[in-house]
Amino acid sequence: MYGGEQGFGGRLQAAMFRANSLICVGLDPDLSRFPKHLNRDAGAIVAFNAAIIEATADLVCAYKPNLGFYAAYGEAGIGALVATRRLIPREIPVIFDCKAGDIATTAAAYARGYFDEWEFDAITISPYLGEDSLAPFLAYPDRGVLVLCKTSNPGGGDFQDLTLNGEPLYLTVAERAAVWARQYPATVGLVVGATYPAQLAAVRARCPELPILLPGVGAQAGEIMAAVGAGQDASGAGLIVSASRSVLYASDGQEFAAAAREVTARLRDEVNAARNVATIGA
Amino acid sequence: MYGGEQGFGGRLQAAMFRANSLICVGLDPDLSRFPKHLNRDAGAIVAFNAAIIEATADLVCAYKPNLGFYAAYGEAGIGALVATRRLIPREIPVIFDCKAGDIATTAAAYARGYFDEWEFDAITISPYLGEDSLAPFLAYPDRGVLVLCKTSNPGGGDFQDLTLNGEPLYLTVAERAAVWARQYPATVGLVVGATYPAQLAAVRARCPELPILLPGVGAQAGEIMAAVGAGQDASGAGLIVSASRSVLYASDGQEFAAAAREVTARLRDEVNAARNVATIGA
Repeated sequence: MYGGEQGFGGRLQAAMFRANSLICVGLDPDLSRFPKHLNRDAGAIVAFNAAIIEATADLVCAYKPNLGFYAAYGEAGIGALVATRRLIPREIPVIFDCKAGDIATTAAAYARGYFDEWEFDAITISPYLGEDSLAPFLAYPDRGVLVLCKTSNPGGGDFQDLTLNGEPLYLTVAERAAVWARQYPATVGLVVGATYPAQLAAVRARCPELPILLPGVGAQAGEIMAAVGAGQDASGAGLIVSASRSVLYASDGQEFAAAAREVTARLRDEVNAARNVATIGA
Repeated sequence: MYGGEQGFGGRLQAAMFRANSLICVGLDPDLSRFPKHLNRDAGAIVAFNAAIIEATADLVCAYKPNLGFYAAYGEAGIGALVATRRLIPREIPVIFDCKAGDIATTAAAYARGYFDEWEFDAITISPYLGEDSLAPFLAYPDRGVLVLCKTSNPGGGDFQDLTLNGEPLYLTVAERAAVWARQYPATVGLVVGATYPAQLAAVRARCPELPILLPGVGAQAGEIMAAVGAGQDASGAGLIVSASRSVLYASDGQEFAAAAREVTARLRDEVNAARNVATIGA
């Protein structure tokens, strides 16, 4: 199901094995929380990200910059986003967390930008516009399309938990994603918040083989244990555990990158302790 | 309900009266369809848009650039987006069609970028993440938040038409938007595709006072008549009728801007003919 070595699923799996890690670092710059010795302008973003990437590259299976944290700094922020992507070693997949979702002709334009121009390995996308809004992204056989399913925020339930035909909407989305995954192998994944382990288990039961991006991991190991237990696939993988602020802002001193490495390594070990041990490094 | 002169609703209404027009031109650059005498690079986008804006500014109530058509050309495309926004006279609201939608902390970053940095007057947003994902945008009392409700694409029904308690999801979204509109006056609107006049009428019945952005207007006047009949509010306004390709690419010759003006004027007149005539210019 991960597809060949060239597919997103295959490259993600290879990165998980290489680093023995399910951890993804969310590269979400917030100048107000930057180390005190760095400038508080968009130019500092690339230097900051470069230090974080250098300190964590051997500990992660993916990086995930979120468009919002770059757009917040205007054109210069977008420049930093593009420069950041170029800093990341090619063997580590980069998930562009852009929550895309538009009609097909427009989606094709987005795909040119996000996949061809900026060379991201995967994107996140809202399912609200339906299958034809995903199709232009799915048409790239070597890229990933991670569909928002059950999001980590409190309001995620406003619509996602509404019951349609006896099932919550997010499970209908999961079912549909499983169908798309058969049509577009190694391309489709889901996004499920770590804050909802029971719902995560329900999604995993419907989609035993899809990679699931798991944002919303806080500082609590208990939460992580429950989420990994609920979300891992049969091989103890298939889960992209994403942490942002807890890693990036572990310290605001000169040693911020070393502190970020320490938090990332600890998180990796905690997650690995919760995985189906028999298969680690298999 | 349109709010004071400073609110998005009030400024939109003022623009509609000023131009006696419900027309919005979607500024969606596609270099492959650009006039033959223009360069086929991102630098040509600003010159093209400038000519379109100059030729149509007295005929429209809004402009609507879509992020995808700028991201398609990478960093240079984003530069053209920012430059395009600056070209548009302040009295004409600019709707940034970005289909946003992310958890609250991230949404706040997007809002800083899209509202403060780039100074767009309104955004489009997907409802999938629920109320707290909209809140950071709604917190700007002078900007607009247009919530995707029933989209114009064929796949829009995949999830939007699913039935809950005997109602399609898109009507549940419309109901919820009406609640948000009472909390955040003059800020909330909806997006409903012109391709679904019956559904548009159902949405208008639930939300008699919300502005509705109506993309998907093709070349057929019949469609427009049905959509305007179904979607206008009690005053014969409240509808933002968006056209993109039919205006922008009316001609690929030297006279493309004049051709765009002609199509826009004709569309305005067709739409006005379908409005509740008593109130035009009132």
